[in-house]
Amino acid sequence: MKERILQTADRLFYLKGIRAIGVDTIAAEIGISKRTLYNHFPSKDELISAYLKRRFVVAKPSEKSPLSQILGYFDALERRFSAKDFRGCPFVNAVAELGPEDRAVKKIAIAFKESRRVWFRDLLAQLGVADAEGLATQLVLLVDGSIAQDLVRDDPAMARAAKAAAKVLLKNAGVDVGEIGGAAEAP
Amino acid sequence: MKERILQTADRLFYLKGIRAIGVDTIAAEIGISKRTLYNHFPSKDELISAYLKRRFVVAKPSEKSPLSQILGYFDALERRFSAKDFRGCPFVNAVAELGPEDRAVKKIAIAFKESRRVWFRDLLAQLGVADAEGLATQLVLLVDGSIAQDLVRDDPAMARAAKAAAKVLLKNAGVDVGEIGGAAEAP
Repeated sequence: MKERILQTADRLFYLKGIRAIGVDTIAAEIGISKRTLYNHFPSKDELISAYLKRRFVVAKPSEKSPLSQILGYFDALERRFSAKDFRGCPFVNAVAELGPEDRAVKKIAIAFKESRRVWFRDLLAQLGVADAEGLATQLVLLVDGSIAQDLVRDDPAMARAAKAAAKVLLKNAGVDVGEIGGAAEAP
Repeated sequence: MKERILQTADRLFYLKGIRAIGVDTIAAEIGISKRTLYNHFPSKDELISAYLKRRFVVAKPSEKSPLSQILGYFDALERRFSAKDFRGCPFVNAVAELGPEDRAVKKIAIAFKESRRVWFRDLLAQLGVADAEGLATQLVLLVDGSIAQDLVRDDPAMARAAKAAAKVLLKNAGVDVGEIGGAAEAP
């Protein structure tokens, strides 16, 4: 039952917004009482934390080359943007909705953003990039920018524009990225 | 009175979130009845629209060189990030909160994002950049990425990282940007 509550909360919080969805709505959707829900999650705050922790997916180690992994991240983004139920970054949305005063939510969001930046940084270091820290931050800006733009505009090509920009930044850092192509390159 | 309601709504919607703030709260904050508020704004939706339209500030024509205007945009972002009451992009936040189903809000958000992209595009065209459309989109990704990162991390240096990346992209497009510096360059 705990997993079922969490799945339902995940879907509704992500698609409709955390403030838009009350604990009542989640319980009603499953057909349980609020009391049963509270037996598993004593407060809405705990359910929100569990939802964000569930969304905190760490990239798996890969056999692919560091460059393929970095560029592949943008391809994966484009596929996610194309999915009907994509609705932005759950961590950014949660901070936007609940405000920076919600320290617990903010802490999870910062941890997620940092884990992804470190993932890029380690791959860039493997590629021999001198300022892997700085470039990782710039790549993350492109990722988050394309997510925000897609959220507003429903335009998966934003991921492709981000990838094209990432290639220019990688090339400038001495990485051999092959043909760069324009911002409007084919996928 | 209309302006006073709008000012109060603006402050509370932006700082606390649109869903977090009811019409009652706004009326109470000013010390008026809900009825008085509804005389000026017949529904919360109309107040939300008025709030976003008020935030829709178009860049003024400037005597500065196109390059100074483009790079200066990132300096201005850093100053905004450093302000205590900065809380992300009101348009992205509104779409994140209210969901893409709210067509009126989405329409204003798209119009704002597009007006800023066109502002960059026209300056890039003045600089003789061949693919001004594509590069403008990439610059906008850096802007929105730094806003999302600052919202989560409270780190105004994200604007500086975006500026450093923008310089690399501009240089790659044939613009003379002078010394590029690292991602960690001084402001």
